[in-house]
Amino acid sequence: MFSDGVFAIAITLLILEIKIPTHEQLQQYNGLYHYLMHIWPSFLGYFVGFLSIGIYWSNHHHFFLYIVKKTDHNFNLINIFFLMTIALMPFSVAIVSDYAPDPENMSAAVLVYSISLILPQIAFIVLLSYGKKHFGIFNPDIQQDFLKKQIRKLLMATGMTIIAIILSVLYPIAALILIALIFLMYFLPPDNPSNIDTASDNGIEK
Amino acid sequence: MFSDGVFAIAITLLILEIKIPTHEQLQQYNGLYHYLMHIWPSFLGYFVGFLSIGIYWSNHHHFFLYIVKKTDHNFNLINIFFLMTIALMPFSVAIVSDYAPDPENMSAAVLVYSISLILPQIAFIVLLSYGKKHFGIFNPDIQQDFLKKQIRKLLMATGMTIIAIILSVLYPIAALILIALIFLMYFLPPDNPSNIDTASDNGIEK
Amino acid sequence: MFSDGVFAIAITLLILEIKIPTHEQLQQYNGLYHYLMHIWPSFLGYFVGFLSIGIYWSNHHHFFLYIVKKTDHNFNLINIFFLMTIALMPFSVAIVSDYAPDPENMSAAVLVYSISLILPQIAFIVLLSYGKKHFGIFNPDIQQDFLKKQIRKLLMATGMTIIAIILSVLYPIAALILIALIFLMYFLPPDNPSNIDTASDNGIEK
Amino acid sequence: MFSDGVFAIAITLLILEIKIPTHEQLQQYNGLYHYLMHIWPSFLGYFVGFLSIGIYWSNHHHFFLYIVKKTDHNFNLINIFFLMTIALMPFSVAIVSDYAPDPENMSAAVLVYSISLILPQIAFIVLLSYGKKHFGIFNPDIQQDFLKKQIRKLLMATGMTIIAIILSVLYPIAALILIALIFLMYFLPPDNPSNIDTASDNGIEK
Repeated sequence: MFSDGVFAIAITLLILEIKIPTHEQLQQYNGLYHYLMHIWPSFLGYFVGFLSIGIYWSNHHHFFLYIVKKTDHNFNLINIFFLMTIALMPFSVAIVSDYAPDPENMSAAVLVYSISLILPQIAFIVLLSYGKKHFGIFNPDIQQDFLKKQIRKLLMATGMTIIAIILSVLYPIAALILIALIFLMYFLPPDNPSNIDTASDNGIEK
Repeated sequence: MFSDGVFAIAITLLILEIKIPTHEQLQQYNGLYHYLMHIWPSFLGYFVGFLSIGIYWSNHHHFFLYIVKKTDHNFNLINIFFLMTIALMPFSVAIVSDYAPDPENMSAAVLVYSISLILPQIAFIVLLSYGKKHFGIFNPDIQQDFLKKQIRKLLMATGMTIIAIILSVLYPIAALILIALIFLMYFLPPDNPSNIDTASDNGIEK
Repeated sequence: MFSDGVFAIAITLLILEIKIPTHEQLQQYNGLYHYLMHIWPSFLGYFVGFLSIGIYWSNHHHFFLYIVKKTDHNFNLINIFFLMTIALMPFSVAIVSDYAPDPENMSAAVLVYSISLILPQIAFIVLLSYGKKHFGIFNPDIQQDFLKKQIRKLLMATGMTIIAIILSVLYPIAALILIALIFLMYFLPPDNPSNIDTASDNGIEK
Repeated sequence: MFSDGVFAIAITLLILEIKIPTHEQLQQYNGLYHYLMHIWPSFLGYFVGFLSIGIYWSNHHHFFLYIVKKTDHNFNLINIFFLMTIALMPFSVAIVSDYAPDPENMSAAVLVYSISLILPQIAFIVLLSYGKKHFGIFNPDIQQDFLKKQIRKLLMATGMTIIAIILSVLYPIAALILIALIFLMYFLPPDNPSNIDTASDNGIEK
């Protein structure tokens, strides 16, 4: 699957942002222990970036597995735009972990990161709306109520991310706290369409 | 699927060309905001590169899903050549986004990029022609008319890309505009063989 | 499959840590032969890193193929944490192969490596325990005895890795020897649930 | 599929060895045209590397699709060793394209490359021999004659590669010519087991 591949690569590329020090750098930092302590924001960035992409993957996977029945050309194009926003994340995660600890650039770094978080949400809303309007794309057993609830949930997350974007210009730390809250929201299990059997998904056979 | 993997990796590698600035570079550029504005051609390159590979993927995927019934050794070899031209794109996209804004190298950069666009088209024409000539490779339900129309469409895009290649030597900006037009053409939905049921493709089950 | 993709990328990224020398570096090292001999720890690191990720993959694949019947949201989240620990390995392998030969940083390098070895084990134990407690995730034909034996084996490896972590602070060489022993243990074939037919797994059809 | 993923990543990483020049480098080389002409060995390396990995993939894919019926733990381990030799190729291809044009390091570069070519062959022979000896791994409909012929063909290629390794020390150019001949040999279609129906393989459904 092409989409799963893009997710898997974007998530694994995150590790390339935790740099292996040269021998010269290590001496400057007084050894490996000090170096590792110094680069803790990179580790935090890896952790948060991995979670973000992982959560987006889980939602996307769920969506294609239970809701999408067939695709058309436009739906595929929107999906490519969605993947484009996912593949941007190794960049924005590196920016925020390199420059959020730097007071001068903190605001710009958090802005870049919160914009990169909202882009997949927007693309996903477009994907959902397109599928909802075009008969035959979604599984006909999916209830309109269920879809509406999904879009409402997404819009709420998007609204909060917009607030984070605005906050990042003046109060970047408040923006980061808000982003952390949005993440916690995503930890709640996604809704399953109650009338669809999801029992056979072990992630391999499908 | 090996082919899908190559597409997914090539498309995700594009992000590696948007460089994370070092702290020294940022000071030179007067902070992150200025740096990001300065590297806008990299973002444009990412956008265009992602779209190009995405569109080629969509066509290739369509082709293998509905038209190809079985492959033989030569067909596989031609497909490997096709993938070779796809995996080149992160290179040519980086060249064009780094050097198209530089008057001295603009012409060479656009030439590199337009050559890299024509290579997958040529490989795809060879793939189609080979499959058409060798009985058993294509789904026998595919009508000859449909295939001929596909090849004609491809030849038209290839013709326009040849013009872009020639233009790039003298009028690189005109070449870029022509390339943009070719892209718009690709946004039109590909034809489906009218007599093949394409209803069950949700991109996961197949 | 997303998980298989992360494993495949993490394992292939290992090669990027064997650096291609520049022409200047080669002159410094008196030619390619000397350079290659000088960087033998990188080759060893590649070998050991490839084996580690390969073995973890093999166990993970086995587990999802024969034991997991369906997943739920929490199970997926724990699996994402597991993959996060796998994708860390190209970093820790590079650290240990660059700095284990350097007496000053040896202890820190071996510590980093042994911690990176224990993380996937812990994540896997959490995955197993969660699945064991929540009815419906594991194949109901799997016997409790079999699962208990698996967890016991894992706990033994984890115990040994904890000893390696402690040793690495004072006797890093002893820690490396112990890690080599743990690896040898993994070379033993994993147990198959005796009452499940595993005959049709050729790694492609599933 | 894990194996296909490793092949796809290794083959796509080859492009990272064609370096994007910095603006300073371009001035040194008198513009993009001259730079591109100067780095022709990188393009040749990309071409040859892509073909090598592509051909090994095609054979491996064929093998798992038509011959292997199930795997066991040891078979999986040997396969991991095989993949380890494949993932080495972006390194050896970069070495040969960077240093084969340099008279002082040519011999070492060709040696590295020819060793990297023989490693997957050896791993594949071990894989074939192991499968042949252990009842149940190979499709029982495969005739012993067919397998023997395959091993004989592989041994011939391996023999020629051994000669290339020896030649590379004294006559690296002769070694390169011999390697080119071995490649041509691989362009011949692989044998299909005559009594197995291979008609349904379109590379997607399997």
